[in-house]
Amino acid sequence: MDNPCSSILLDNAVKEFSKLPGIGKKTALRLVLHLLRQSSEDVEQFGNAFITLRNGIRYCKVCHNISDSEICGICADERRDASQICVVENINEVISIENTQQFHGLYHVLGGVISPMDGVGPSDLAIDELIARLEAGGIKEVILALSPTMEGDTTNFYLYKKLAKYEVEITTLARGVSIGDELEYADEVTLGRSILNRTPYKM
Amino acid sequence: MDNPCSSILLDNAVKEFSKLPGIGKKTALRLVLHLLRQSSEDVEQFGNAFITLRNGIRYCKVCHNISDSEICGICADERRDASQICVVENINEVISIENTQQFHGLYHVLGGVISPMDGVGPSDLAIDELIARLEAGGIKEVILALSPTMEGDTTNFYLYKKLAKYEVEITTLARGVSIGDELEYADEVTLGRSILNRTPYKM
Repeated sequence: MDNPCSSILLDNAVKEFSKLPGIGKKTALRLVLHLLRQSSEDVEQFGNAFITLRNGIRYCKVCHNISDSEICGICADERRDASQICVVENINEVISIENTQQFHGLYHVLGGVISPMDGVGPSDLAIDELIARLEAGGIKEVILALSPTMEGDTTNFYLYKKLAKYEVEITTLARGVSIGDELEYADEVTLGRSILNRTPYKM
Repeated sequence: MDNPCSSILLDNAVKEFSKLPGIGKKTALRLVLHLLRQSSEDVEQFGNAFITLRNGIRYCKVCHNISDSEICGICADERRDASQICVVENINEVISIENTQQFHGLYHVLGGVISPMDGVGPSDLAIDELIARLEAGGIKEVILALSPTMEGDTTNFYLYKKLAKYEVEITTLARGVSIGDELEYADEVTLGRSILNRTPYKM
């Protein structure tokens, strides 16, 4: 039965929620019934937040990060180190790295990684824009912070080849056992790498 | 950092999603980034579905089920057996029972169960409205379909006392081992009851 409780409005709302990734019909119904218990103003604020976002959002001209204006808050922040560029796949990674509070340079959002399986080639990514930033000068270090997957490694390699002729240091994220991990459960490749790339013990 | 990627619009949308039960900040961000990849029209349809629902929804005058009009589709359906009333806690249970396609009578949504711990007493529930339906006549059976919890049992008992003086059959849902359950994992109370209330074997 598609519409068991005979409310088309309820049914529509449930359908809209179920379109989201990871949300099934049961969860969707639970969320909709939760919204029904909220005040009319709260629900309007809820619905409009997404509409306003979708219609109002822009992407930073410089780093392609999400932004409310032409240049994002990170690129516009003069306290940040403009000589470091951290190259990431998507906005999610900008947010994750910002949350660590350990990086004070700028970003460059590629918009994905090279993945022939998904039909994503170098020309689909913001690589020319990254090179343009290097050619504009003032960059000392490019940090490749892509996912440690086959596609991420391919993209790292491609970028390394492209960027090698510029006078910049090219670094990647350290790989090794996660903090808090039990060694016996670490995968072999990671554990192997973390022995090869062992670092001096610091108190 | 409250606003790591410097977009207030994004931040607002994430906050709105995180208000929903069972959705944390990470999931909220994932959902918002998903919405950002959809067309402007799709996101407007998404946001407006909830606003339209919240502002347009009504509750059936007869059974208190959710409805687009004064009388819900179930109460208005003349093919249904108006002599049976199934008493449930909330709209969720109406939808669950409708999905079984095994019940063809009408419903009565109490709006909860008696729960002194949560400050819910009989007067907070639609019990007087249920009695009014019985007094109007034509009802042959009242099915108590509340949750098999302490509160549900208390409410069952209260309703039974209240309804006993009317000439209606009062039934409750059958309790026993679930279909597909392994007996060794069934809880003792359920297993005990299902032995006491054993039924003749049917081919």
